[in-house]
Amino acid sequence: MTAAEESGKTPGRLASDPEATEKGLPRNPRIKFHFKREEFDFFFQWLAGMQSHGGVSIGEAYYAASRIREGDIESWEREWTELARRVERRAEASEASGHRVSARESLLRAYTYYRAPLAFISPLAEPDRYRSTYEHARDRFRRATSYFDAPIEAVEIPFRDAALPGYFLKPDAAAVRRKTLLMIGGGDTFAEDLYYYLGPAALNRNYNYIFVDLPGQGLLPFQGLVWPERAEEPVGAVLDYLCDRPDVDTDRVAIFGLSGGGHLAPRAATGEKRIKACVACALILDFSAVWNRRFVELNQKAQRSLPYRLLKSFFAWKRRAYFNMVDTYVWRFGLQSAADLIDATRNYTVDPAKISCPFFNIVAQQEYEQSSGMMIAAREAQRHISHETNDLVIMPADEGADSHGVGTNLGLLSQVTFDWLDTALQ
Amino acid sequence: MTAAEESGKTPGRLASDPEATEKGLPRNPRIKFHFKREEFDFFFQWLAGMQSHGGVSIGEAYYAASRIREGDIESWEREWTELARRVERRAEASEASGHRVSARESLLRAYTYYRAPLAFISPLAEPDRYRSTYEHARDRFRRATSYFDAPIEAVEIPFRDAALPGYFLKPDAAAVRRKTLLMIGGGDTFAEDLYYYLGPAALNRNYNYIFVDLPGQGLLPFQGLVWPERAEEPVGAVLDYLCDRPDVDTDRVAIFGLSGGGHLAPRAATGEKRIKACVACALILDFSAVWNRRFVELNQKAQRSLPYRLLKSFFAWKRRAYFNMVDTYVWRFGLQSAADLIDATRNYTVDPAKISCPFFNIVAQQEYEQSSGMMIAAREAQRHISHETNDLVIMPADEGADSHGVGTNLGLLSQVTFDWLDTALQ
Repeated sequence: MTAAEESGKTPGRLASDPEATEKGLPRNPRIKFHFKREEFDFFFQWLAGMQSHGGVSIGEAYYAASRIREGDIESWEREWTELARRVERRAEASEASGHRVSARESLLRAYTYYRAPLAFISPLAEPDRYRSTYEHARDRFRRATSYFDAPIEAVEIPFRDAALPGYFLKPDAAAVRRKTLLMIGGGDTFAEDLYYYLGPAALNRNYNYIFVDLPGQGLLPFQGLVWPERAEEPVGAVLDYLCDRPDVDTDRVAIFGLSGGGHLAPRAATGEKRIKACVACALILDFSAVWNRRFVELNQKAQRSLPYRLLKSFFAWKRRAYFNMVDTYVWRFGLQSAADLIDATRNYTVDPAKISCPFFNIVAQQEYEQSSGMMIAAREAQRHISHETNDLVIMPADEGADSHGVGTNLGLLSQVTFDWLDTALQ
Repeated sequence: MTAAEESGKTPGRLASDPEATEKGLPRNPRIKFHFKREEFDFFFQWLAGMQSHGGVSIGEAYYAASRIREGDIESWEREWTELARRVERRAEASEASGHRVSARESLLRAYTYYRAPLAFISPLAEPDRYRSTYEHARDRFRRATSYFDAPIEAVEIPFRDAALPGYFLKPDAAAVRRKTLLMIGGGDTFAEDLYYYLGPAALNRNYNYIFVDLPGQGLLPFQGLVWPERAEEPVGAVLDYLCDRPDVDTDRVAIFGLSGGGHLAPRAATGEKRIKACVACALILDFSAVWNRRFVELNQKAQRSLPYRLLKSFFAWKRRAYFNMVDTYVWRFGLQSAADLIDATRNYTVDPAKISCPFFNIVAQQEYEQSSGMMIAAREAQRHISHETNDLVIMPADEGADSHGVGTNLGLLSQVTFDWLDTALQ
């Protein structure tokens, strides 16, 4: 019996056999929350989901959304930023009068809103604005941490000549060693984002929670630290740090990879045996298969041919949000053009046979059904990971849990993740 | 300086002078979250807001909404109930494997979803189904309470020959007397609903939180306990109960009235001097002014005239959700027909001059601007309440805080409420 079966997930929803899942789950209706444009609605859904862990208030988010014009990234940026300022003023009022909980909660929302414009700012085209927008948001998060009840420390983990910035959060100050979850983000995350993802859920379940930028994340690419082929190296640095802490139970350290972290975390687990359990949401074995092939080809052709260059310019004008989003990935991989994304990432692979700890692949139904890469990776993992605890769960559309990273149902994600971890780390 | 000013609310947003507010705030754009129909979207927004306190996961809520047909209360009922069953199955899995936090969180969501159909079931037309639907939902909430970390007790407060059902929640088991907030719901609430409204916010701020059905709420009208003219009587029974508890600081008991509770709580404060601070969201001085006059007149004419009877039948078919919603109020006031709502509630008044404790009126901008009753009540309170701490705050549209009861921004509502209470109860 696998850990997931022991943890008692609803029968028929835990798919050890992908075929069964394909038949057993209802079709995904591709629900929009507000925007018609894919990029906008995706990010809006992500934000709306963060309400579960204090990232937004839904009314605030809808007010901003109602004033954003479809596809217009200037209005996207303006409305989130103005909302952030209003929420920050609320925070300042509570800070001035010594109301710590209120100050904390509004600063945590202010971070989210100040950070939202970064979704569509190109770090290649506007590096200074990208940096300052992030730093402004991050400072609000930092201020929020000074009002936490749970102990939280900003950490800088030495790695080569640099430092990986992040936070270590624990349920309370008791002098005990606890289970610890290391959260790894993806191709467009900043360390602070990861607090809202599973931070409060970890605390409620008596886990330590450490969340950091790896190379290729946050602002680290500005220092030349780009997305790593061997994630086990920077993750090893984080584990060195954890092993030195008196409050970490080093026999019970797990790693969770979100989005692009669904590649980094399992990759780290192939080489770093201090990881005692690995969760991917969702597993990516071959990073070069992640990219939109037609988009990469368009960029390649545009380098050689004037008509394609014009075509690309037209699309870049028409779909700036998408182009700027891709720029983030290009920049994070240390590249100059989307034309290079596939070739440059050919060696970014995970060999599932080298994962020897309990493994859990959490795949949103939408992605499982629409991305052949996701389905293939899931099957490869099922076949080749040697540990007897090797689970796959499809997060179903009819629980609103089928968006990327399961961002729209953090309640269910928390449940599925920690119920599994509790057993896997026993 | 008033308590609200001391607590440092953003200048210009605390309106001691309603005129200033009318000019100073941006126009309300009447944002819809999903449904075109007012009743459906209102309730959906309410649910979406409850995510802040664990009432829903936004993806779950949107999935259900996406399958509900506009105005079709059968599909409304079916989709929320089926969602509730899926979430309850998740809860059962976590219960079976001993994962208390996950069990609690999913049961708390299951309550919300099982309870959602009650919005549009008429307790006059289908009393048995109304009762059993509620009891089914309530039992899930009860089960959730057995997994709380914070101490929570189901209470039954003796009142006349009956008992007012509810819950007493406190931050921890320490033997100390704490500030206590008594939460009073409205014309369509059940005691359990009130947990999600401000329960977690109260705990985070070290308050006890007691939430009960008063006469006219929950299922009490089935026992003949209908909406009280003198709310000070049942509230007095709750205060008797609180004064007997060793963990209540009886010098620091506040009352908060939501929706119709915006009448009950201030009314109780006029006669019950053990209440040391009173918040209304929002203040209702004259209950007979609450009702839709044209709707009441339609019902009156339908009693006398066949053409109007036919007209009413047509509307009742066309807008069943609205008619059933009104039935709830009719039933809760112990009446048989909406025709009687105005006449029967003429004596349901609050004399603001009799409120002698700190008072705080929280009005959603939308209601403040659209309901002359709300604005008049706010002005009367400003003029006649004798305590020097007598505050009015308009919850602005541009923070998404302008829906009924501020349900769409519980973060801001919690902040404004408890920052004020902290000062008022000092």
